[in-house]
Amino acid sequence: MTGKGSIAIVGAGDFIGAAIARRFAREGHPVHGGRRRAERQDALADSIAATGGRYTPHRLDARLEDEVVAFLDAAEADAPLDAVIFNIGANVRFALTDTTERVFRKVWEMACAAGFLTTREAARRMLPRGRGAIFLTGATASVRGASHYAAFASAKAGLRAVAQSAARELGAQGIHVAHLIIDGGVDTDFVRERIRETGRDPETLPPDTLLRPETIADTYWTLFNQPRDAWTFELDLRPFSETW
Amino acid sequence: MTGKGSIAIVGAGDFIGAAIARRFAREGHPVHGGRRRAERQDALADSIAATGGRYTPHRLDARLEDEVVAFLDAAEADAPLDAVIFNIGANVRFALTDTTERVFRKVWEMACAAGFLTTREAARRMLPRGRGAIFLTGATASVRGASHYAAFASAKAGLRAVAQSAARELGAQGIHVAHLIIDGGVDTDFVRERIRETGRDPETLPPDTLLRPETIADTYWTLFNQPRDAWTFELDLRPFSETW
Amino acid sequence: MTGKGSIAIVGAGDFIGAAIARRFAREGHPVHGGRRRAERQDALADSIAATGGRYTPHRLDARLEDEVVAFLDAAEADAPLDAVIFNIGANVRFALTDTTERVFRKVWEMACAAGFLTTREAARRMLPRGRGAIFLTGATASVRGASHYAAFASAKAGLRAVAQSAARELGAQGIHVAHLIIDGGVDTDFVRERIRETGRDPETLPPDTLLRPETIADTYWTLFNQPRDAWTFELDLRPFSETW
Amino acid sequence: MTGKGSIAIVGAGDFIGAAIARRFAREGHPVHGGRRRAERQDALADSIAATGGRYTPHRLDARLEDEVVAFLDAAEADAPLDAVIFNIGANVRFALTDTTERVFRKVWEMACAAGFLTTREAARRMLPRGRGAIFLTGATASVRGASHYAAFASAKAGLRAVAQSAARELGAQGIHVAHLIIDGGVDTDFVRERIRETGRDPETLPPDTLLRPETIADTYWTLFNQPRDAWTFELDLRPFSETW
Repeated sequence: MTGKGSIAIVGAGDFIGAAIARRFAREGHPVHGGRRRAERQDALADSIAATGGRYTPHRLDARLEDEVVAFLDAAEADAPLDAVIFNIGANVRFALTDTTERVFRKVWEMACAAGFLTTREAARRMLPRGRGAIFLTGATASVRGASHYAAFASAKAGLRAVAQSAARELGAQGIHVAHLIIDGGVDTDFVRERIRETGRDPETLPPDTLLRPETIADTYWTLFNQPRDAWTFELDLRPFSETW
Repeated sequence: MTGKGSIAIVGAGDFIGAAIARRFAREGHPVHGGRRRAERQDALADSIAATGGRYTPHRLDARLEDEVVAFLDAAEADAPLDAVIFNIGANVRFALTDTTERVFRKVWEMACAAGFLTTREAARRMLPRGRGAIFLTGATASVRGASHYAAFASAKAGLRAVAQSAARELGAQGIHVAHLIIDGGVDTDFVRERIRETGRDPETLPPDTLLRPETIADTYWTLFNQPRDAWTFELDLRPFSETW
Repeated sequence: MTGKGSIAIVGAGDFIGAAIARRFAREGHPVHGGRRRAERQDALADSIAATGGRYTPHRLDARLEDEVVAFLDAAEADAPLDAVIFNIGANVRFALTDTTERVFRKVWEMACAAGFLTTREAARRMLPRGRGAIFLTGATASVRGASHYAAFASAKAGLRAVAQSAARELGAQGIHVAHLIIDGGVDTDFVRERIRETGRDPETLPPDTLLRPETIADTYWTLFNQPRDAWTFELDLRPFSETW
Repeated sequence: MTGKGSIAIVGAGDFIGAAIARRFAREGHPVHGGRRRAERQDALADSIAATGGRYTPHRLDARLEDEVVAFLDAAEADAPLDAVIFNIGANVRFALTDTTERVFRKVWEMACAAGFLTTREAARRMLPRGRGAIFLTGATASVRGASHYAAFASAKAGLRAVAQSAARELGAQGIHVAHLIIDGGVDTDFVRERIRETGRDPETLPPDTLLRPETIADTYWTLFNQPRDAWTFELDLRPFSETW
């Protein structure tokens, strides 16, 4: 028991999610992470434990209301939730006419509906205390519907609208809702693979041209520490050399 | 047979949808309208027939892929689709914590996913001809997530992202995609009832303070007639006295 | 005397301005046009006269308050002003560090401050009647500050803010303010020359890839005829094949 | 001599400007501040000196190119410029028809043109080193033209466009340009006076309903420390209870 509130990360992936977990754990917060394949968090939990922190992995399909409820209940039972972070991506690229109903729905369930459930359940737990933070990870597609991204852009724009509605509705009740637009490639296996597919070698990229998960995590930590006289709802993050 | 292409209206309601139907029918286009209770279009069909036009009512639940396909097939079988107009609203107002998963999903299915299906199926039929128009009805919530509108704003923002992606993807192939932001109360029974609930008498409203469906329909007609050297993707419509 | 109100065009250039003049003159409105070299409007005046319309050229440096006042006074003396259209461009491209104070100021005076003066003076004349239209021509740069366009984007964004403030302030008083974003190359000598500089031949461009001044002018005419229950504040216009 | 780069604040007022000065001085940066009445910075300089920091006051009318050049030269001569912060406000409220040409121009000169000069001169000094930060203070009016704010909104929107163009142009060359939207009342004498004019007592405001200059200054410091793999171009800051 640290005395500090718990942090719940919905979409505790290997990169941004893991970096956020390490960042908050380092500051003494017990962190709970959820992803569909729970065991993929074991190495993360071990590495956090090795540095004196505490990370509890959960199996979580955030598209399912019951699982979101159970996940946040578990985190709350450990320590009052100080922050809930929604970090599920679902970046797919399809021509409009090749986008199946199933893909459109699935991307929305993962990237938008799960974010709504997370935001609502976080709010229900935080409102009685009049404090807490709900942060959602956005992308370029959150503010721009590009060719071949109808499904992804629709889900991300829908998530941003949830964040905006929630920020306006919950702010005066002490809940800080923020939306971070990650506008550039993050240094992940997925992005390095995409770069390889375009015929470039990701190992020879100039330094600092991919966003580091650690830097993104620092931004979540900074937002978490904003005093309530000056909260940020939205900010963008992009590598210095990114064209936009 | 008029020689003119057909117009399909998804969400052929009593107000905006009906006005669009009358507007295009008046110009000689055979119009096909779909709504869940097909019989509610009978009076509209009769009135259009009485003025020499042609309106075919269809039963349509636009959340269902098969029904959208069948609806557009029927319209296309009548005459090549010149325009497909998506006009389903789903304006609900709930506190975030009172928004059920069922409501959030249903609003999205009606206002966003159905719009995606409509856009995709329209594109599939129009692309081989390299021409056609796909117009989608937006609202204030399309660009602003207000307190108590998480579900509606999320769906409308998601629809707008579909429109934007589609416009960028289909434009150079000759398909005109546009998104109309209706930013104010439309003169409908629903809105008059809402006004009554606030203790005001809608009969004593100053003139022109509600949008007339006929004026909105004229705008659809204007967009339909834009030559392709100068297409509009987005415009807003609001009563002169509206604060925004 | 036509019985119709007069139209004043500030920035009556050879392309968009001239097309707007012809469009409104064709409908029977006496049109007054102002540009710095008044004589460059003679051919336009003659061609409008030849088709039974009336166009009065004025010498106007719209950066000068007195000249704007005198110009609108002259139009108003002819017939009550129905519409005032601000159409001065000042598209320059400079690296930020190569942008002189003089250029930055001059572009602002032409593209923004002149638009403010025009809007204010139009409002002063229209408000007592409780009707009138004030339309301002925008560009891609109005909503996006691109590299090498600090001066132009700053002026155009400033003009858009004037339009937005004015629309909100004057709407309920019966004045329709609108801002048109021209997002693409217009078919003018200037643009054809720019294309030539990039090594392409403007004569071999695919059809409809440049905006025609006449199509743009039709849009001004359409906005002018919107009933006040459904006014547009902003719309974009771009060629079908434009990437954006 | 601290070994750290210098910080130049254009518009070193008593509140935000002074707080930024204290924040950076506390970290060991020599700070140079400019405002029209140089002597009004004496107390600030003394208080910073008392805590071991260094603050150099300058007389600066940032509308004048020569003075901006001389000011940044002086700071650069002290130590290479690490950050230049533009913080001049010019919040005025006038009905459109009561806005004089003189007011419109003066507000633009102070809030926009001075920001352009500052940005350009900062860039000229930083580009050869391939590093540095240029931060500009925005306001609600930067993104919204409200009734009675044509002059202020136009200048602030123009400044934001300068920031956006500069960010896109300078980013890949190592210069971090950011724009901070202060969307709410800051705790200053000016704002307290405005509150008093509305009949409320600023002393009885609920806590945290005005932005504290110190919190804003912390945000500048945070942005200054962002590694270049994840730079923020824009963020908003508002009190938790603000409606927006």
